[in-house]
Amino acid sequence: MNTTIPESMRAVELRAYDGRPESLALVEKPVPTPGSGQVLVRMAASPINPSDLMFIRGFYGFKKRLPVVPGFEGSGTVVAAGRGFLARWLVGRRVACATASPDIRDGTWAEFALTSAQLCIPLRRHVDLEQAAMMLVNPLSAWALMDIARRGGHRAVVQTAAASALGRMVVRLGRRFGLPVISVVRRAEQMEILRTLGADAEHILNSGDSDFDRRLMETCRPLGATLGFDAVAGEMTARLLKAMPPRSRVLVYGALSLEPCRVEPASLIFEGKKVEGFWLSEWLRQHSVLGQLRLARRVQKLLATELKSDVQARLPLSKAAQALKQYATNMSGGKVLLVPTMTD
Amino acid sequence: MNTTIPESMRAVELRAYDGRPESLALVEKPVPTPGSGQVLVRMAASPINPSDLMFIRGFYGFKKRLPVVPGFEGSGTVVAAGRGFLARWLVGRRVACATASPDIRDGTWAEFALTSAQLCIPLRRHVDLEQAAMMLVNPLSAWALMDIARRGGHRAVVQTAAASALGRMVVRLGRRFGLPVISVVRRAEQMEILRTLGADAEHILNSGDSDFDRRLMETCRPLGATLGFDAVAGEMTARLLKAMPPRSRVLVYGALSLEPCRVEPASLIFEGKKVEGFWLSEWLRQHSVLGQLRLARRVQKLLATELKSDVQARLPLSKAAQALKQYATNMSGGKVLLVPTMTD
Repeated sequence: MNTTIPESMRAVELRAYDGRPESLALVEKPVPTPGSGQVLVRMAASPINPSDLMFIRGFYGFKKRLPVVPGFEGSGTVVAAGRGFLARWLVGRRVACATASPDIRDGTWAEFALTSAQLCIPLRRHVDLEQAAMMLVNPLSAWALMDIARRGGHRAVVQTAAASALGRMVVRLGRRFGLPVISVVRRAEQMEILRTLGADAEHILNSGDSDFDRRLMETCRPLGATLGFDAVAGEMTARLLKAMPPRSRVLVYGALSLEPCRVEPASLIFEGKKVEGFWLSEWLRQHSVLGQLRLARRVQKLLATELKSDVQARLPLSKAAQALKQYATNMSGGKVLLVPTMTD
Repeated sequence: MNTTIPESMRAVELRAYDGRPESLALVEKPVPTPGSGQVLVRMAASPINPSDLMFIRGFYGFKKRLPVVPGFEGSGTVVAAGRGFLARWLVGRRVACATASPDIRDGTWAEFALTSAQLCIPLRRHVDLEQAAMMLVNPLSAWALMDIARRGGHRAVVQTAAASALGRMVVRLGRRFGLPVISVVRRAEQMEILRTLGADAEHILNSGDSDFDRRLMETCRPLGATLGFDAVAGEMTARLLKAMPPRSRVLVYGALSLEPCRVEPASLIFEGKKVEGFWLSEWLRQHSVLGQLRLARRVQKLLATELKSDVQARLPLSKAAQALKQYATNMSGGKVLLVPTMTD
């Protein structure tokens, strides 16, 4: 293990919450020193997630003071720690780490990231650093959504944006748990992607088809799909809610359409349907530290199978703006990773 | 008591679910005969409610086979009964009655109405038939909403369409129970109406004001108005939800804007807010028969005070189309009643 920590590091910096590529710059800045309960992670890789796109545009649940290093998760090796048992114990260990908290100053798109020891998950030996970089946001969210479905006794679930990284994990977890997953995608080629994952062809629907609404209803009602996961919002929320059986519930966890959800009053009033949100941070807060560790163990076990992320590209920090563009224009093509050790 | 029941009666008939005045006609039709568990009520009066407008336009929770007599509630005297203890016991009694069920063939806009004995509430001596005609839809709904607020431990509530019959009852119940009610109206003269009911001037807001959204937030958050009653839908649902504190819940019970609710995904995801519906029929179904009788007694006690309805006009059945128009163009001016005994 290389314990030499340099004075300064390269990092991606956001200068304005406007979503323009020019608002991101590669800078040289001091490597921070861990305070009590904190660790310094030498980053191996960190992904671009839809939540990063929301953060950069200023649409996320919180904003940090500018300029700020974006990036909510990643993986690496803990190279320094402040006071505290857990922090010291992590030194030298490979971890998945998160910086998705308003209390953490900077994010993971840098050579080093400072975070709370409690937001680091030590990795089991068989887990590779690249998959671990994408372990916290999507795999945990997919697990959480299916956990809500199973605990709620839902006979089936329906999801939009089903070809996304998270959507694919939900499909594979559905197969594992024997819980039917109805998947809504926007393009024919995305249907093919889901079929190769083993999704039942009759449970994959294209929202662009002219008979989509009728077919969605004819699929959701007999299967008893009373829980929906919606990452699209806009008109899609109303179409989803309308197709589902009475007393269904839709959990909105994203807004890829960048539109407000539309909801028919009749669905709410006469059919007893509900619209709520899902936020991983909030869901995790409802678990004890022990419960969170148990979750981390389960997710790591499935990281090479059901909860595997596909990667479409690996780029150095200097190409962050290009990486963002590539991801935003092909979100179902796999994750784009920022790898600090890559040279330009 | 006049027990002579004629062979035929006058009734208002709906011929198409299109909301056009021409689709309503005054007809002569046979007086129906009560079956087992049913009673025949000689109608004294029946109101036009927003739910009737929805039914006539085909937007209500169910449709009945056309042609059909509209009207979901009214009052009168039971003049005949089929088999069954309750039905026979009601004969000769003054009742408030409902026909708001897909199982009841025709409604209350007629000289006689057939309904289930279980949908009749015998009236206490002090209750007058005119107020009783409007007892079931609005007073019970207002009571139900405030019951949900009190049982849920909400420190305050916020409502839209606050100058409606139901909205005024919510304001008065709020005063009775010491539960602050924030009222949203659309016009300055409606603010005056609510002030005369004793509403706190600082808790009445006009959604047409340029600083409405800021003021709504500055009123809802400090008071802890975590429950909202929305009868407007459309853009108003999003504005209401955004102004309320984190973890708030909006119950949509009407759609006066005739628009789908708009809901910001960020309100759902990052603030844990929820959107649900409220339907009186469904709420009542959750109560035992005994519980429903207890409710009916409570509501009758308040029918001359907190749960009083204002009346703007009384019209004969032959003027049903005109009555509908008058009500629809001035919904906060008081109820319009159809009175079968009035001559043209």
